[in-house]
Amino acid sequence: MASTPPGLDEFGLIGRYFRPLTMSEPGAFGLTDDAAVLDLAPGERLVVTTDAMVADVHFPATDPPAAIARKLLRVNLSDLAAMGARPRGYTLAAVLPRETDETWIEAFAAGLADDQAAFGIVLVGGDTVATNGPATFSVTALGVVDGDAVLRRNGARPGDDVYVSGTIGDAALGLAVLQNRLDVPMPADRDRLVERFRLPTPQLKLGLSLVGVASAAADVSDGLVADLGHICEASECGANIELAAVPLSPAAMRAVTDRQPLHRSLLTGGDDYELVLAVPAAERGRIAEIARTAGVPLTRIGCFVEGSPAVAVLGGAGNRIDLGRGGYQHFRKSEKEGG
Amino acid sequence: MASTPPGLDEFGLIGRYFRPLTMSEPGAFGLTDDAAVLDLAPGERLVVTTDAMVADVHFPATDPPAAIARKLLRVNLSDLAAMGARPRGYTLAAVLPRETDETWIEAFAAGLADDQAAFGIVLVGGDTVATNGPATFSVTALGVVDGDAVLRRNGARPGDDVYVSGTIGDAALGLAVLQNRLDVPMPADRDRLVERFRLPTPQLKLGLSLVGVASAAADVSDGLVADLGHICEASECGANIELAAVPLSPAAMRAVTDRQPLHRSLLTGGDDYELVLAVPAAERGRIAEIARTAGVPLTRIGCFVEGSPAVAVLGGAGNRIDLGRGGYQHFRKSEKEGG
Repeated sequence: MASTPPGLDEFGLIGRYFRPLTMSEPGAFGLTDDAAVLDLAPGERLVVTTDAMVADVHFPATDPPAAIARKLLRVNLSDLAAMGARPRGYTLAAVLPRETDETWIEAFAAGLADDQAAFGIVLVGGDTVATNGPATFSVTALGVVDGDAVLRRNGARPGDDVYVSGTIGDAALGLAVLQNRLDVPMPADRDRLVERFRLPTPQLKLGLSLVGVASAAADVSDGLVADLGHICEASECGANIELAAVPLSPAAMRAVTDRQPLHRSLLTGGDDYELVLAVPAAERGRIAEIARTAGVPLTRIGCFVEGSPAVAVLGGAGNRIDLGRGGYQHFRKSEKEGG
Repeated sequence: MASTPPGLDEFGLIGRYFRPLTMSEPGAFGLTDDAAVLDLAPGERLVVTTDAMVADVHFPATDPPAAIARKLLRVNLSDLAAMGARPRGYTLAAVLPRETDETWIEAFAAGLADDQAAFGIVLVGGDTVATNGPATFSVTALGVVDGDAVLRRNGARPGDDVYVSGTIGDAALGLAVLQNRLDVPMPADRDRLVERFRLPTPQLKLGLSLVGVASAAADVSDGLVADLGHICEASECGANIELAAVPLSPAAMRAVTDRQPLHRSLLTGGDDYELVLAVPAAERGRIAEIARTAGVPLTRIGCFVEGSPAVAVLGGAGNRIDLGRGGYQHFRKSEKEGG
């Protein structure tokens, strides 16, 4: 009760593992003050997003700690990517079971360090407390945009194309593999799909390059159909996408068979952390150029239409495919607030 | 596993309870985007702090939800107060047991609304997820300061006075009452002490008015001796305080008896959320004036001294009082990182 230090306190874990993660940001004061003080450049606006992850809800508690740390950061960075923002810093609330040992924390911090270097973000503050429950993490990622150079969800217009980056559905299949719900014969395919679930790639450079080109954007965290639905809701229009146009990885293509149709998993499964975009048709040439420059495929999978905020998934004959819950019904922002 | 929506999703709780809390901040986009976008005024710098609270670690799970919400906000606001910052916005990660019902969330959000109005802060984003463990909350509070007008922990100099605001130890005694560890005869005293534990008052106005006067500041969250120790560490000096000078509330004074000496609880108990300050002796007049204007007592309880970063608590005869663990030994920042 009260601010009882966790059993971990004896390790001086803040000083040993978290303070070193702040060293490139003088305003973090080496975590010795009550708060960090950050400067924005003139004209910069602050972008803020928070995502929480709970062991055995959002990741297997037995996952490697470095992988958990990296996914935690990347999930938040993906929200910055969807806004076209540049990463600036993050705070971490680490709520750890009392039995957590120092080796675990060391590996967790090493994972943060790797991704700080990879994505140019730095720890600026946080809190580490003990729990009698599962490990629970919350990151608040801070980014910046220049003035109005920001991607929003509410700019899609009927007639705009629907694009997605990368490939869709790998993470959902990877989770199914981890849960022994999916039969994937080739070990390399299994590894690839599981890796996509464990270690998503936030499309930060792509997000930045889409500012002023895409009319709306979201990251695919809840599932392609759900997140496209969020754009539809914010933009007050509908969207039609063609199932056959949704880009799949070779591993995902091999997993989809007559016996395992998997359409629902692919389109509603979540955790892709690709971007789903609205793009005016006049920008197709620029989109192709951006994809080439970023080295990330951008695939046109449908278009926005007049009407209620719903997503229709169309089969080869133009027939609507019913995905059940999470499908093309009316969408509600589910558990996620603003990021 | 993965981003499975919690059982709560069906309530549309974001839209019903959290979206209304964002209405005074257009950059929160009504929680419909991947992140919020906030503007700072020219010359403003961003102040960021994160605090997490876990049911039955930091508050009794059976506490009224509005009280939990308000303490959560206030604990974070207290960090802003200790920096001399003005509140700007906050994000909330709410990690809720699956069995949480809508009534609980409604009351929790009402508590947030009350304190948003009281302290001039607004929800700008967050995440609500389900857990199989205890309710767990993390708030990242965002504040602003003008240029270098900020309170830090590292400015105390030998010869500076040690001041504290308000009274010390009430919250620790209130917790002891809740845990049936303390005998307090008068019901009004019990209520007062418990209230101080449940609903601390962040000293925001006081913090602001101390900028340029105090040479160092921290909020008393871990306990007076521990937090004064944090100032000593950051400032590389020691501090002596007189036990008899530490200001106690009438309720606390009545609780301290020969049978219940309580010195350890009062000085190391935490959760006061008062400010502990270093102030150059030349500023005593201004401190008296600031206390009068703010309507908050500021009491001189000792002074900073040359030497290692340790706090000595002195009895009436100038003898050192040993508080055991959490006492005047070398301090380490315990479980708290930068806020």
